[in-house]
Amino acid sequence: MSLPPLPPGATIGILGGGQLGRMLALAAAQIGLRCHIYCPDPASPAFQVADAHTCAPYDDEAALAAFVKSVDRVTYEFENVPHVTAAFLEGHVPVLPGQHALATTQDRLTEKTFLKELCIPTAPFAAVDDLAGLERAVADIGLPSVLKTRRFGYDGKGQIMLRPGADLARAWDDLGHQPAILEGFVSFCLECSVIAARSPDGSLAAYDIAENHHENHILKTSTVPAGIAPETAAKARELGHQIAEALDYVGVLGVELFVVRDAAGERLVVNEIAPRVHNSGHWTQNGCVVSQFEQHIRAVAGWPLGSTERHSNVVMTNLIGDEVHEWGRYATEPYTAIHLYGKSEARPGRKMGHVNRITPRS
Amino acid sequence: MSLPPLPPGATIGILGGGQLGRMLALAAAQIGLRCHIYCPDPASPAFQVADAHTCAPYDDEAALAAFVKSVDRVTYEFENVPHVTAAFLEGHVPVLPGQHALATTQDRLTEKTFLKELCIPTAPFAAVDDLAGLERAVADIGLPSVLKTRRFGYDGKGQIMLRPGADLARAWDDLGHQPAILEGFVSFCLECSVIAARSPDGSLAAYDIAENHHENHILKTSTVPAGIAPETAAKARELGHQIAEALDYVGVLGVELFVVRDAAGERLVVNEIAPRVHNSGHWTQNGCVVSQFEQHIRAVAGWPLGSTERHSNVVMTNLIGDEVHEWGRYATEPYTAIHLYGKSEARPGRKMGHVNRITPRS
Repeated sequence: MSLPPLPPGATIGILGGGQLGRMLALAAAQIGLRCHIYCPDPASPAFQVADAHTCAPYDDEAALAAFVKSVDRVTYEFENVPHVTAAFLEGHVPVLPGQHALATTQDRLTEKTFLKELCIPTAPFAAVDDLAGLERAVADIGLPSVLKTRRFGYDGKGQIMLRPGADLARAWDDLGHQPAILEGFVSFCLECSVIAARSPDGSLAAYDIAENHHENHILKTSTVPAGIAPETAAKARELGHQIAEALDYVGVLGVELFVVRDAAGERLVVNEIAPRVHNSGHWTQNGCVVSQFEQHIRAVAGWPLGSTERHSNVVMTNLIGDEVHEWGRYATEPYTAIHLYGKSEARPGRKMGHVNRITPRS
Repeated sequence: MSLPPLPPGATIGILGGGQLGRMLALAAAQIGLRCHIYCPDPASPAFQVADAHTCAPYDDEAALAAFVKSVDRVTYEFENVPHVTAAFLEGHVPVLPGQHALATTQDRLTEKTFLKELCIPTAPFAAVDDLAGLERAVADIGLPSVLKTRRFGYDGKGQIMLRPGADLARAWDDLGHQPAILEGFVSFCLECSVIAARSPDGSLAAYDIAENHHENHILKTSTVPAGIAPETAAKARELGHQIAEALDYVGVLGVELFVVRDAAGERLVVNEIAPRVHNSGHWTQNGCVVSQFEQHIRAVAGWPLGSTERHSNVVMTNLIGDEVHEWGRYATEPYTAIHLYGKSEARPGRKMGHVNRITPRS
């Protein structure tokens, strides 16, 4: 793909006004680019820091038409951009990452099939369209397995763990009879992720691998470097590059990986691809000179990718719900960076901010 | 002074919408605080990144009245805030740093007198109110000396170097017969600066000392660590603390220092105090976890001061005028952070951005 670099002063449109859109806008401002945020939520945190914003539904063609006239390029902060929205915008300006990446990763079945075709290891999986299909899938894959909706799942929402002896009919009812996928449970020793970037000219850059810990299905900490073998880390970065290339991707993507240890050593299983900046990449804000947010903006703007070298070790800790009220304690800690998202209401399970604690690089 | 800490979501008003206001607003956003920028220039770079802005003259009482209702605290990005503006605002919300710091540092003569009373070394100086006064001052101090306006000078503007044999009457005419100060020329071996912060509870924190190089009277590079003896660096930080305390200061200030080397070793002479974040502190954005901008916001917000430890060595280089067009070259350099200010016109001598290049800490 050939895309001229946007000059300083140009405007990037961002679909979605949550914390990821906010941090993208802050990173764009640092390098002299403007942002126009489009989001239906009037309380969008990203509105507070952007040069312009549009508060309208994603299918409001008049609002989209005005939006697209004010921007030089469009990107997004979440993978569930409606197809109709992306298609409308693409008729007017480049929308990056493009439709192929979006279509592939919006649907767990399409994503897993894509990975299988690349011979990239995933959990065993099967499509589930009805109860009979679920029974067949369980017979094939066995239990424990996880039944997930094909679309719109995040932070453990839209998924049900099926242990041996599980009531399949009830699980199918609980999932609301939505198109689904059964994924065999992977007995992993730890979870990690790679944040990779690809520019319009095909350049690739991946950050060091983060080790991730979840609480209640929500990411709690990301630690860099991860406690994995150097070859495993190298392999994870290669996987990030391979996936970005196969998707003809432009921008930053996150790939969640399971690390499985057995007699043969460590191996990686891809859990999920996020076609966007990713929570497990927030450590880059204080561990590298160019964060994942600036990296994404650079790629979308057609700028050279930034160097992904890491100057420090980092532990990123999410502040979830009421935990944000402890900001005063974190503010007194040395070598600790506080990032708060400007959300007014600290609802349980809501990501309100994060802290990055750095130590000398190992 | 007792000031309750502002909670996340509160709004800080900033007088001045240039690059310093812009970087203050970006730093405030990172920690969940909103900013309202007040500036008469409709093209203010800070407007692009702030939650709200007011474009009005500094003496527009109606605009100031509306502004002050929308903010929880006020600060500024430049020392020439008109007295009437600060006084009006102080009647409604805390304005930090306060009137004492502003009044002391707006006038070179007042500032030098303040330093002399603290027994802090400065260049020899004398007030100049007319040509006869200039002649007396030259007789006292000798030449070479520098004749400077007492107010509104920056980047070498409003000053005239007087070498032996200089035409004093012509110099006095060239300066426009403004209230002035004659400062004896200090034969320094290098220039450096300290960026210090003080919080409402009196806590102090100073960053490592930067070594500064100027071109055409404009700062070109700041390098950390500075090439000075450790005791000199410690003394410079002490001076920063001493000045902040004596001014009953809240926020970040920059103190420019001359380093003089003679048979007795190194000694420091204070050149100038800037009651605000300072160009020679931009390196902190990529050398520390808490930048000078966040530090200033923390102090004004009554938050604990952040740690000033430095994780890397840094060379900050200003991009002046057309140099900003070289952004593409800097974008390909490893360990290099680009900061552009969102100014549309690259006039000669105009500060358009800066780059911070980091290397492992020494």
